Amino acid sequence: MSIITLTTDWKANDFYVGAVKGSIISECPDATIIDITHQIQTYNIAQAAFILRNSYNHYPKGTIHIIGVNSENSAKYPCVAIKADDHYFIGAANGIFGLMFDEKPEIIVKIKSNNDLLSFPELSIFSKAACDLAKGKNILELGEQIPKLSQQIPIMPAIDENVITGSIIYIDSFKNAITNISSDLFYKVGKKKKFDILIKSNSNKISKINKKYDETSIGELLAIFNSLNLLEIAINKGKICELLDLNINTTIRIKFYDNTDN
Amino acid sequence: MSIITLTTDWKANDFYVGAVKGSIISECPDATIIDITHQIQTYNIAQAAFILRNSYNHYPKGTIHIIGVNSENSAKYPCVAIKADDHYFIGAANGIFGLMFDEKPEIIVKIKSNNDLLSFPELSIFSKAACDLAKGKNILELGEQIPKLSQQIPIMPAIDENVITGSIIYIDSFKNAITNISSDLFYKVGKKKKFDILIKSNSNKISKINKKYDETSIGELLAIFNSLNLLEIAINKGKICELLDLNINTTIRIKFYDNTDN
Amino acid sequence: MSIITLTTDWKANDFYVGAVKGSIISECPDATIIDITHQIQTYNIAQAAFILRNSYNHYPKGTIHIIGVNSENSAKYPCVAIKADDHYFIGAANGIFGLMFDEKPEIIVKIKSNNDLLSFPELSIFSKAACDLAKGKNILELGEQIPKLSQQIPIMPAIDENVITGSIIYIDSFKNAITNISSDLFYKVGKKKKFDILIKSNSNKISKINKKYDETSIGELLAIFNSLNLLEIAINKGKICELLDLNINTTIRIKFYDNTDN
Repeated sequence: MSIITLTTDWKANDFYVGAVKGSIISECPDATIIDITHQIQTYNIAQAAFILRNSYNHYPKGTIHIIGVNSENSAKYPCVAIKADDHYFIGAANGIFGLMFDEKPEIIVKIKSNNDLLSFPELSIFSKAACDLAKGKNILELGEQIPKLSQQIPIMPAIDENVITGSIIYIDSFKNAITNISSDLFYKVGKKKKFDILIKSNSNKISKINKKYDETSIGELLAIFNSLNLLEIAINKGKICELLDLNINTTIRIKFYDNTDN
Repeated sequence: MSIITLTTDWKANDFYVGAVKGSIISECPDATIIDITHQIQTYNIAQAAFILRNSYNHYPKGTIHIIGVNSENSAKYPCVAIKADDHYFIGAANGIFGLMFDEKPEIIVKIKSNNDLLSFPELSIFSKAACDLAKGKNILELGEQIPKLSQQIPIMPAIDENVITGSIIYIDSFKNAITNISSDLFYKVGKKKKFDILIKSNSNKISKINKKYDETSIGELLAIFNSLNLLEIAINKGKICELLDLNINTTIRIKFYDNTDN
Repeated sequence: MSIITLTTDWKANDFYVGAVKGSIISECPDATIIDITHQIQTYNIAQAAFILRNSYNHYPKGTIHIIGVNSENSAKYPCVAIKADDHYFIGAANGIFGLMFDEKPEIIVKIKSNNDLLSFPELSIFSKAACDLAKGKNILELGEQIPKLSQQIPIMPAIDENVITGSIIYIDSFKNAITNISSDLFYKVGKKKKFDILIKSNSNKISKINKKYDETSIGELLAIFNSLNLLEIAINKGKICELLDLNINTTIRIKFYDNTDN
C-alpha cells in the first residue's frame, strides 16, 4: 500500500484537487492519498518548502510527495522526480528542492512524458509518475537522471562574537514567528550566558526561553524552541506578527552578555 | 480497522496537519484518518465542542477523536484520553469535555508521556495515544485514571412561566443562528399555545415553526427545528446573523400566549 | 471497494462535513471518501457543476458523487440519483444536472425516503442512497424512475461570420478567466486566419494562443487552451480578473481577419 501526499497552491475551491485525486485513484486504487495542504500562497515555493520539509519526515519511508506549486513544465524548470532521505518527491525544479534539502538528493530524474498538456502538469505528468512509483517502478525508469538542480539557498543567521542575527522565515496560523535560529546554534554561540532577544528594535526584548507557552502571562512576549528546534517568538494567546508588524525576513537579534557586562 | 478523526484550530495552510497525519499513518498504516475540521477559530473550545458533539455520534463505536484546540500540555490542563458513549476522545482537559458531554464520561485517564515536546502535544502525545488505542491497547494503560474534569457548564435556557429565554450558541456557515432551545423544551413549556419568537428586539418576530426552509419566501425570517433538534433562526437564502447583527450569546426569547391573551 | 466523493457549499468550519462522513463510514466501512471541495460559494450551482463536470471523469467508472449544494428536499427540487457516463450522482434536481451533462442522463430516479429530517437531506437521504449504491443496490431500487429533469441550459458562444462572442464561465483560484469557447469551435470558425481576442474593450487584445503560460513575459496578457480544451485568458503570474475587473459572464470576443483585411 503506497501513500501519496499532495502539497499545492490550488486552494480548495477549484477543480484541480478533485481531478488529480481522481486520476490517482483511477490508476492506483490502493494508494492512500493525503492532503498536506492546498492552501500554499500562490507561487510561494518558500512556504511550500517549509511546510513539506517539516511534514514529510513524519511519513513512512517510501512515501511519494507531489508538489503542485509554480509547476508549469518548461525547459527552464523541468518536472523532476527526486529520491531523498528514502522519500520520493515530484515537482518542478523551480528552486523548491534547494530550500527543502540540506544535502544534494540521492537521485534526480527529469521526467520523460509524451503528454503535452502543458498547463496542468500535476494532472498530466505528476500523478502518472507518482502512480508509477506507487506500483513499484524504479525511479530511474521515469526519465533521464540529471546531476544537480539549480539551487536557492536559504538565508542562514549571521554570527558576530556575542550576537546572532537571524530572521523570521515563517509565520504560522497562530501568527507566531518562526526564525532561522536553531537551538543548536543558540547554545553553541551563547553557551550559558545571559541574553536578550531583540525583536526589530531594542524595546521589544525577551530574556528567557520558555519550555511552554503558558509559562508566560497572557499577552506577554515569549520565546520558545518549537517542535522544529527553531526559535519561535510569540505572545501567549496573542498574535505577535500582527501586533508588532513582523514579516518574513524581519530581523531577530540575540545579544549574549559576558559576566563582565553585568 | 480503526478510525481516527481530527478536529483542530490549525487551519489548512500550515505544517501541523501534515505532520500529525504522517505520524499517525507511520504508526498505524491501517487507520482511516478523517478530517472533521481544521478551521476551528483559534482557541475556541466552544465551537470545537459544538462541532464534535454533533459529528462524533455519526461515527462507528470505538472511533478515536483527536481534538487539537488550545491544547498545550500543562499541570492545569493535562492531556487526557476519555471514553464516553463508546467513543474515545483525546485532548487537553481545558473545559471542552464539559461542553461536550451531558454526563460524566465513563473513563478519564491522564495520559502519561515521556515526551517533553511541550509546544506541540498533538504530535508528541495525542497521535501516539490515538495509535495505541487503534492498535487495541486498553485506555487504562495510557496513564493514571482520574475521577473528574474541571467543568465548563453550557448555558441553559431560562424558563419563566410563559417565556423561554435562550441564546444563540452557534452560527453555521450559512450564517444561520442555532440556539440552545431544544424542541423538547419548546413543546414542554409551550404545549400547543400560540407563540412569538423574538429576536433581539420585539420587532423581529416569528410566529410559526417551519418544517423546511423554503416554506417561507426568499428573504423572510423563519424558525426551524434543525437536524440537532435545536431551534434555528434563519432567512431563506439569506444571512440572518449579518443582517440582524446576531452573535454568539444574543438572546432569543419565546413568548407563549394563553388563549385569554387573544 | 467503492469511492464516494463530496462536493458541497458547507465550508470546512462546520459540523456538516464531519457528520456526513461519519454517517457514510458507519454504513460503508470499506468506502473511500474523497473531498472534491466543500468551498462552493453558498447556493452556487453553476460553480458546483463546473467543478464536478471537470473532476468526475477522472474517477473510475462506478464512482458515486454526492452534491450538497442548495439541496433542500422539496416537491419542486426532489432528491434524485442519476446514472450518467457510468458514474452515479446524488443531489437535488435544482438545475445543476442540466449544467453538468450535455445529454440526458441514462437513468434518473426520484429517491424514496421515509426520513423526514428535511433540513439536512445530505445526512438523512443522500448518504444513505450513496451507501446503498456502494453496497451494490441497483439504482432503480432507490425510488421511482422519472423521465427528465428541469433544465438550466448553459450559455453557448454566438458565431457571426468572422466573430465568436463568448463569455467567462469560471474564474479559477489563480484568478484566471475560463471562457465557454472551446478549441474545436475556435479552429472550426477561425480556420488558420489571424485573429484578435478582445477582452471587454478593444484595448485589451491578444493575438496569439500560447502553449504554456510562461511563453509570455511576467505581467503580460495571454490566452491558452487549458486542460479542459477551453480558451483561458490569463496574465503570466498575475491575476487578470482582478486587474481588468472580469467577472462571470463578461464578454470575450474573437475577431478573425481574412487575408484581404491585412
